[in-house]
Amino acid sequence: MGKHDAKQDPTQAVKEQIEKNSRASLDALSGTAGANVETISEERNSYEDKYLRAAAEIQNMNTRFNKERAQLLHFDGQKVITSILPVLDNLERALQVEVTDANAVQLKKGVEMVFEHLNQALKEANVTEIKSLGVKFDPTVHQAVQTVAADADHPKDTVVSVLQRGYKLHERVLRPAMVVVAN
Amino acid sequence: MGKHDAKQDPTQAVKEQIEKNSRASLDALSGTAGANVETISEERNSYEDKYLRAAAEIQNMNTRFNKERAQLLHFDGQKVITSILPVLDNLERALQVEVTDANAVQLKKGVEMVFEHLNQALKEANVTEIKSLGVKFDPTVHQAVQTVAADADHPKDTVVSVLQRGYKLHERVLRPAMVVVAN
Repeated sequence: MGKHDAKQDPTQAVKEQIEKNSRASLDALSGTAGANVETISEERNSYEDKYLRAAAEIQNMNTRFNKERAQLLHFDGQKVITSILPVLDNLERALQVEVTDANAVQLKKGVEMVFEHLNQALKEANVTEIKSLGVKFDPTVHQAVQTVAADADHPKDTVVSVLQRGYKLHERVLRPAMVVVAN
Repeated sequence: MGKHDAKQDPTQAVKEQIEKNSRASLDALSGTAGANVETISEERNSYEDKYLRAAAEIQNMNTRFNKERAQLLHFDGQKVITSILPVLDNLERALQVEVTDANAVQLKKGVEMVFEHLNQALKEANVTEIKSLGVKFDPTVHQAVQTVAADADHPKDTVVSVLQRGYKLHERVLRPAMVVVAN
């Protein structure tokens, strides 16, 4: 028994020592690897997330810029067109002068052509006159500068005359029409 | 010896078996972990790369958009301004008509004011007339429609008269000047 014990002892001791060592090695290895995997895995997820956000942002930027570009082109020339509107008013006013002299008739004919040309150019630039005469007064496109008493021909809240024409560039009001409203 | 051998055998066998097993376990573990780390590491690097490219693209897009936006605003109204230039030509032509009649003088005065107003509006929209009369012929801004013999007052390759004014919007030619050149 003593001998058997002695025989068993070294075997058992060696076995235990080796198992202990190898378990420690396994723990150490699996521990280190685990820590690395965890760190790299976190980084991988973080970069994936950042990448996906950046990709979404690129798409948003494209959408946003296409919209902005379309808007800029849609209202292209708004400033210069607005500043040219008085030219139209004044040409129209000049054309109300009555002339008889041959040269004056020639001049007037030239001015009429200019007026037509300018109207056409503005129409092609998507400028339209705001409907005013006889329509219901609309404060978003009409500016009431005078009121007259409503009667049978001029119902309350309708535009009875236009003092200065109003214009829109597409749906945007460049200048409201200055009107007289029945009240 | 036989007994000693028998005694040593089990110890050695157990030891070897355990070492073999634990080495296999270690190899297996380190192999698996290595493969995982490698895969995740590759993915991490790939996402990092994609993210960095996307971030650079976002910066490029911003630069590009800002440039394009500035360009669109810089040449805002180019189309409508170009289509309005004949109005300027025709007003100028109309103003060359001589009138004496009182009404005609009134009409002409009105047209002069319109002409001044339109010139001013175009100037404010950054439209400038191309210098032509007396300057050296420049094919980038002048269109030669006629030539005359050069003489002492009109050196070769200078513009001797302007048939139609040319205009620029900022540095961009809206319409070249139509000129007569000394040859």
